[in-house]
Amino acid sequence: MSRITCPILRTKVTTAEEAVLTIGPADNVGFSGFTGAGYPKVVPRALADRITEAHRRGDEFKIGLWTGASTAPDADGVLAEARAVSTRLPYNSDPTMRRLINAGEVDYVDAHLSHSAQHMWFGFYGNLDVAVVEVTAILPDGKLVPSTSVGNNKTWLDHADRVILEVNHWQPRELEGFHDIYYGAALPPHRRPIELTEPMQRIGEPYLRIDPAKVVAVIETDHPDRNAPFAPPDETSAAIAAHVLEFLRHEVAAGRMPPSLLPIQSGVGNVANAVLAGLDGSEFTDLVAFTEVIQDGMLDLLDSGTLRAASSTSFGLSDEGVQRFMSDIDAYKGRILLRSEEISNHPELVRRLGVIAMNGMIEADIYGNVNSTHIMGSAIMNGIGGSGDFARNAFLNFFLSPSTAKRGAVSTIVPMVSHVDHTEHDVNIIVTEQGLADLRGLSPHDRAQRVIANCAHPRFRDALLDYTERAWAAHPHARHTPHLLGEALSWHERYLETGQMGT
Amino acid sequence: MSRITCPILRTKVTTAEEAVLTIGPADNVGFSGFTGAGYPKVVPRALADRITEAHRRGDEFKIGLWTGASTAPDADGVLAEARAVSTRLPYNSDPTMRRLINAGEVDYVDAHLSHSAQHMWFGFYGNLDVAVVEVTAILPDGKLVPSTSVGNNKTWLDHADRVILEVNHWQPRELEGFHDIYYGAALPPHRRPIELTEPMQRIGEPYLRIDPAKVVAVIETDHPDRNAPFAPPDETSAAIAAHVLEFLRHEVAAGRMPPSLLPIQSGVGNVANAVLAGLDGSEFTDLVAFTEVIQDGMLDLLDSGTLRAASSTSFGLSDEGVQRFMSDIDAYKGRILLRSEEISNHPELVRRLGVIAMNGMIEADIYGNVNSTHIMGSAIMNGIGGSGDFARNAFLNFFLSPSTAKRGAVSTIVPMVSHVDHTEHDVNIIVTEQGLADLRGLSPHDRAQRVIANCAHPRFRDALLDYTERAWAAHPHARHTPHLLGEALSWHERYLETGQMGT
Repeated sequence: MSRITCPILRTKVTTAEEAVLTIGPADNVGFSGFTGAGYPKVVPRALADRITEAHRRGDEFKIGLWTGASTAPDADGVLAEARAVSTRLPYNSDPTMRRLINAGEVDYVDAHLSHSAQHMWFGFYGNLDVAVVEVTAILPDGKLVPSTSVGNNKTWLDHADRVILEVNHWQPRELEGFHDIYYGAALPPHRRPIELTEPMQRIGEPYLRIDPAKVVAVIETDHPDRNAPFAPPDETSAAIAAHVLEFLRHEVAAGRMPPSLLPIQSGVGNVANAVLAGLDGSEFTDLVAFTEVIQDGMLDLLDSGTLRAASSTSFGLSDEGVQRFMSDIDAYKGRILLRSEEISNHPELVRRLGVIAMNGMIEADIYGNVNSTHIMGSAIMNGIGGSGDFARNAFLNFFLSPSTAKRGAVSTIVPMVSHVDHTEHDVNIIVTEQGLADLRGLSPHDRAQRVIANCAHPRFRDALLDYTERAWAAHPHARHTPHLLGEALSWHERYLETGQMGT
Repeated sequence: MSRITCPILRTKVTTAEEAVLTIGPADNVGFSGFTGAGYPKVVPRALADRITEAHRRGDEFKIGLWTGASTAPDADGVLAEARAVSTRLPYNSDPTMRRLINAGEVDYVDAHLSHSAQHMWFGFYGNLDVAVVEVTAILPDGKLVPSTSVGNNKTWLDHADRVILEVNHWQPRELEGFHDIYYGAALPPHRRPIELTEPMQRIGEPYLRIDPAKVVAVIETDHPDRNAPFAPPDETSAAIAAHVLEFLRHEVAAGRMPPSLLPIQSGVGNVANAVLAGLDGSEFTDLVAFTEVIQDGMLDLLDSGTLRAASSTSFGLSDEGVQRFMSDIDAYKGRILLRSEEISNHPELVRRLGVIAMNGMIEADIYGNVNSTHIMGSAIMNGIGGSGDFARNAFLNFFLSPSTAKRGAVSTIVPMVSHVDHTEHDVNIIVTEQGLADLRGLSPHDRAQRVIANCAHPRFRDALLDYTERAWAAHPHARHTPHLLGEALSWHERYLETGQMGT
């Protein structure tokens, strides 16, 4: 049966090569996609070819590329390789695009994901010329069945001058009913409360709306999503997870949290997946997730019943995870809900629901500042993503990482982070395989003692303590967060010079 | 007429000296007070005396001191002088207390004001033993007419084991009706939307509730609030204000903001007051404030009609401002509403209303990170206060400061801030008397160019550009926020060594 049953939009079916003729130099283009799910599969390649051709002719041709979050090699990757992008927002994890950003060839606006849709609508990013959105199907009345991510699709479709739709036959037609698209958003001063009080509550409709007059092309595709393979937890991740679980037990026992916890958010990556794996098989049951990505670990929890249900904006499943999901898709219906990222990450909702936020980090400093984005102060890794949306507004936040990186050459705990994404005011709990530092209600002095004792790798512990003590001694009148400014970033400098943070 | 018309509470009237006998060593004590308004006037001194006496006997006696925000010399000050405080939260601006914090003698937990009430309720700060709250009057049914600030009073009264009330006859009895105390707050998972859609909407009741059984003492006082005098705008502040106004005009003309703007928030201080003064006499009218402090500048706007009304959690008026307010108090009723700081600063409401946030700063760096709290990386100035609540969730935020400090020895724009309170992801607009840098939608590279060109003092501009260019050149593969780590904090180091940032 056809996936395009709307007569008007049926007339617009064409090829990707034709479709990209509607995209011109300096256009801002809004892609669907959040992690390697639901991004357009054929327009990026066709556009890259068109731009490569233009470059061969000596013409200038670059676009501004906006997405939900990261995409995949066949979207970000091919456009990066074609040197087709001038500006990129709000999040990237593609290695080629990252290389261009760090080479200064692509302007990157690394933004809180909950801010991206509204900042576009506020007019802060300029005009959106074209939206390119993957969908699962187009219904007779022109409504769109979304794909495996929602991201910023609603905003891009509402505000773009022109729209290109990719209808992907690879996506299961049964995705219809997995989405809840909120259409109550407005510009100030016309905003209303978002009347969501439970993670799985429906506040919208299962479809994306589109003005058919704006649709300039519809393309049929049959291409898989692409996400990174799922690594089973290693010893380090399992140790981190064990510390988190022990702490959650402690909080429940102290009466500070219900036995089925509060809605959990789990960032992308293997450490976060390990925490989920740790929850599986624990005494915790009937949990709910209010998160931005459903990784393989969450499927396990849904299968075992540890997790009752999950609200998200995207799937971030491995190939194996996709197969599992697809082969039993009806069993997940009603237990998984995909929303726009302005809703999945909304400060109002994250705070109201009392989310428990668990996110990875690159490094933390002795006073509890966290760097989630930059390597040695200068190079971007991926971006802040939703970590700030969740951490700032959470009931409780965890920042997780092994205590060392680069085979032990780099300490995750440093005197001063080389870039701050989450300030000392925003960080509750830091966890490494060494242990957990509960920083709630502590002064910077006490935070430093606890982070060093509980989280730093033993090989770096003495040097950190020594720094802390000398900074204290050097500043008899400035002991709130005493620093030796000439030395604060010297660990990073030393790494850049010698490949080792330690002496 | 008596201010205490509740028969039960009438029986508890006593002296401050008797009252403080209910406060013991290591107690956590929650004071009313936000800026120099509505703080307890006589218990702090009596408590300081009791503790001084204990210290003379060689006994250990310190308390944890929690407030709404800053208080005044006769609250924070006297307790600091008596070495009576072990822990202080969530905000302080008292110079003696600051000195002890920076000497490492007082543990200071510098917290987002919107977090302080809920973190207490979550149990993150431990048990609250005693609340000491100034009120204007006690009604026959035991309800309390709040004073000139609300702050965290509702939370302290609800959760303290014991309560001491100060009924201050100096406060105008006509304050009844100026307050809106929200009693819909709950712990997750029981939270509901806060149904406020307009800054002046009432969502609570005009009174604070109290369980009379918890009240251990009622004290009658007759003491003035104490706030810093109001300085008329100097040339520098006026220039900053002019840049802000020009920008607001530009945004209105571009259709990104309504002609009567969006609700404004204005931080404490002379620069913020200057912006208010600039709005007065401009073409802007019918404005509304959704803010945390009503300074003298706001009274002017209310008097002239530029400001229709203001929602706040506190007054921060000079002596002269107090006289003006008191002498015409009925004219302000219905145009000023005081709320709990968990409401005045609530992320949900700040984002929904689309607040325009204007706050001072200590320094900003070339990439747009802002330091609001620390001097040269180590010493605390005051604290983050509400600046993060407002800036992160605002429709638009401004950070304002003269381009130099210490008679020109210190540049407000630096290569790297020595402490981060507002990350590059959170900062929209930086303004000095030199000009305004609109950072929305810009990459770090472009932000640096604009901040240096528009905001830095000409005397520091070349050195900043030189740093930026050398950092770029040094990092061909790390040009997102390129830094020279050995030099990034050298301006601060040089100041500490020579008293000058410049060479």
